[in-house]
Amino acid sequence: MYPWVYYAPKKNFGVFFVADYSDTFFMSRALDLARKGRGKTLPNPLVGAVIVKNGQSVGEGYHRGPGKPHAEVEAISNAGNKAWGATLFVNLEPCCHVGRTGPCTETIVKAGIKRVVYAATDPNPQVNGKGARTLRRAGIKVSNGLLSQEATRLNDVYFGIVEKERPFVTLKLAQSLDGKIAAFAGHSKWISCEESRKFVHSLRAEADAVLVGMGTVKTDNPQLTTRLVKGKNPYRIIVSTELSFPKNCKLIDNNKDSKTIIATSERNIKFDLRHSYKRGLTFWCVKSIKSGEIDLSDLLDKAKSFGIHSILIEGGASTATSFLKSKLVDKIIIITAPIIIGAGLDSIGDLGISQISQSISFKDCYRFHSGADEIFIGYPKWKE
Amino acid sequence: MYPWVYYAPKKNFGVFFVADYSDTFFMSRALDLARKGRGKTLPNPLVGAVIVKNGQSVGEGYHRGPGKPHAEVEAISNAGNKAWGATLFVNLEPCCHVGRTGPCTETIVKAGIKRVVYAATDPNPQVNGKGARTLRRAGIKVSNGLLSQEATRLNDVYFGIVEKERPFVTLKLAQSLDGKIAAFAGHSKWISCEESRKFVHSLRAEADAVLVGMGTVKTDNPQLTTRLVKGKNPYRIIVSTELSFPKNCKLIDNNKDSKTIIATSERNIKFDLRHSYKRGLTFWCVKSIKSGEIDLSDLLDKAKSFGIHSILIEGGASTATSFLKSKLVDKIIIITAPIIIGAGLDSIGDLGISQISQSISFKDCYRFHSGADEIFIGYPKWKE
Repeated sequence: MYPWVYYAPKKNFGVFFVADYSDTFFMSRALDLARKGRGKTLPNPLVGAVIVKNGQSVGEGYHRGPGKPHAEVEAISNAGNKAWGATLFVNLEPCCHVGRTGPCTETIVKAGIKRVVYAATDPNPQVNGKGARTLRRAGIKVSNGLLSQEATRLNDVYFGIVEKERPFVTLKLAQSLDGKIAAFAGHSKWISCEESRKFVHSLRAEADAVLVGMGTVKTDNPQLTTRLVKGKNPYRIIVSTELSFPKNCKLIDNNKDSKTIIATSERNIKFDLRHSYKRGLTFWCVKSIKSGEIDLSDLLDKAKSFGIHSILIEGGASTATSFLKSKLVDKIIIITAPIIIGAGLDSIGDLGISQISQSISFKDCYRFHSGADEIFIGYPKWKE
Repeated sequence: MYPWVYYAPKKNFGVFFVADYSDTFFMSRALDLARKGRGKTLPNPLVGAVIVKNGQSVGEGYHRGPGKPHAEVEAISNAGNKAWGATLFVNLEPCCHVGRTGPCTETIVKAGIKRVVYAATDPNPQVNGKGARTLRRAGIKVSNGLLSQEATRLNDVYFGIVEKERPFVTLKLAQSLDGKIAAFAGHSKWISCEESRKFVHSLRAEADAVLVGMGTVKTDNPQLTTRLVKGKNPYRIIVSTELSFPKNCKLIDNNKDSKTIIATSERNIKFDLRHSYKRGLTFWCVKSIKSGEIDLSDLLDKAKSFGIHSILIEGGASTATSFLKSKLVDKIIIITAPIIIGAGLDSIGDLGISQISQSISFKDCYRFHSGADEIFIGYPKWKE
């Protein structure tokens, strides 16, 4: 995944490159290990650890989920005696508090680790620099910041839920070059390429829940499964003020796993509970705001109580617009296919922005190719 | 510009890379030389040539403009006697006909060149494979296709004018992630970053003319100069059916170089010639189609007669839409800034596309970063 890191040229003797299996190499390896926990660790972070002695990895580990050993502990246990005098590479600051498992700092000190290199500081107020301090007090050499951008992006959800104390909200859009999600007459399906659709399914597998508005249910009748990739199916939240489902609605009919949730406003739920939408469906009774729309903050509160830590919004435009207007979007993923539609359905509706200077910009963003498409990932900067 | 080509690893001995100054290296050099002629060679192609003997360049040349020596001739003349038995690298098939200068094939044979490697075949019916055949008949080893994609993209304008026998039309858009060129209240200026604006000025320097609609003249009052880069200012074409210019219109007032052209329909031109728009302005009397709009094919005919070989359309949305609807766009450049506007002015209007399957797709496209922005370049595939 990071060939430029694996072969990071340290010195360039004429036309020869000398590869350098350095700190960067091992931190990159720790990040790769952390990725193995994707979709399984929430509300815990993704963490990978490598124990290095004499320039060689002698033990590796990653966090497999809540209640399971932390990455550092697993790596040290795999290294056994070799951990004595070794260096620990880990993508997140080691913890120093007792949670479901004991503090990692204690295990690190006991194992005789000489040096600890971590990428990102843990924003959890119980750690947040205290882990590093505990290690330094025990005489361990500690440094941080190596590949911190990668480490921060990798744990964006964890960092988000620690900071905001609500589920992390990702908005995904698939659009044409000119920002349309559909031609006027057509469906919004299949704008993006096969590779991008697989990418979307992997996003679903990582999220606790996907969310759509009733418009998308009616137009596209989506399944919202992870069928193109390995991974669990997420909860499926349908947000609507009116509960008139189309016939053969897949989210209702294919609900054997009882993961379909209908989030609707109080008045409607009373009305509809008397009716037949009972095939394993969960109903959330969500407050509405004055305009009759769903109160999205209340929706996120309900999701949090339900144990949902991350939500992927999959459309349509009006749902996306509502979340953006409420400033409740933490991450935006835009998949752009190389086509031009002209007039059609906008990917995003009116945000009340009348000047370019008021537009939504990003704290951090990056782009990569996905087959013929391009994927933009950004973390919006919300002005207060 | 092509570090991965200059240091193309041929063999990988463990962790060591051995650089290979191969055919690819010299063809890449020929392309770089060709680029030096940018903005000066039309209607001729951009051509660069390198003479290589014993793995070393012994002569280089590029085409500097119509009537000046061809790249091959310049390179051979610079190589002198060393050309005997050498290899010629050139990005376009050598010509075999007499134009303003003699045929290159003759010079190549006379110089004793042993091998010719060219990237792209010249689509000009007077050459188109005949150049290669002439060389082969003289006993020269000829190969082609190396870096042909780069070579084709570099000479897109030349290839376009040879094929379509009309000026090459490039459409440039600067937009937000969600495909808006402006918020409702605002100007469309400064959506893109400084680096992208310089890129646009370099596009202007390469084009024979830039073209805008009257809407853009009124809203943005642009100068359409190349002030941020080195290079000549292009002709400035204003297309409009109505000739009511705003006060302090920069394209009218700053017309010291007499490069502002007003393309308008017959009736208006009669009307306005009686008025005061005479400060060095050129008027083109263009046919109109039944809806009263300008006939763009006729506009391109006028431009051709005027000696304009390439036109850069700089807006606004309705001008872009008209050209796209007429299928008269050969290249689309979309600069996307990492901002979201929501409702605003669409970059492209109604193209009469009602299904995704009818959308405009591309024969070839690529993307690259420009500061915080991303630039998409594509060659639309027009269905008949």
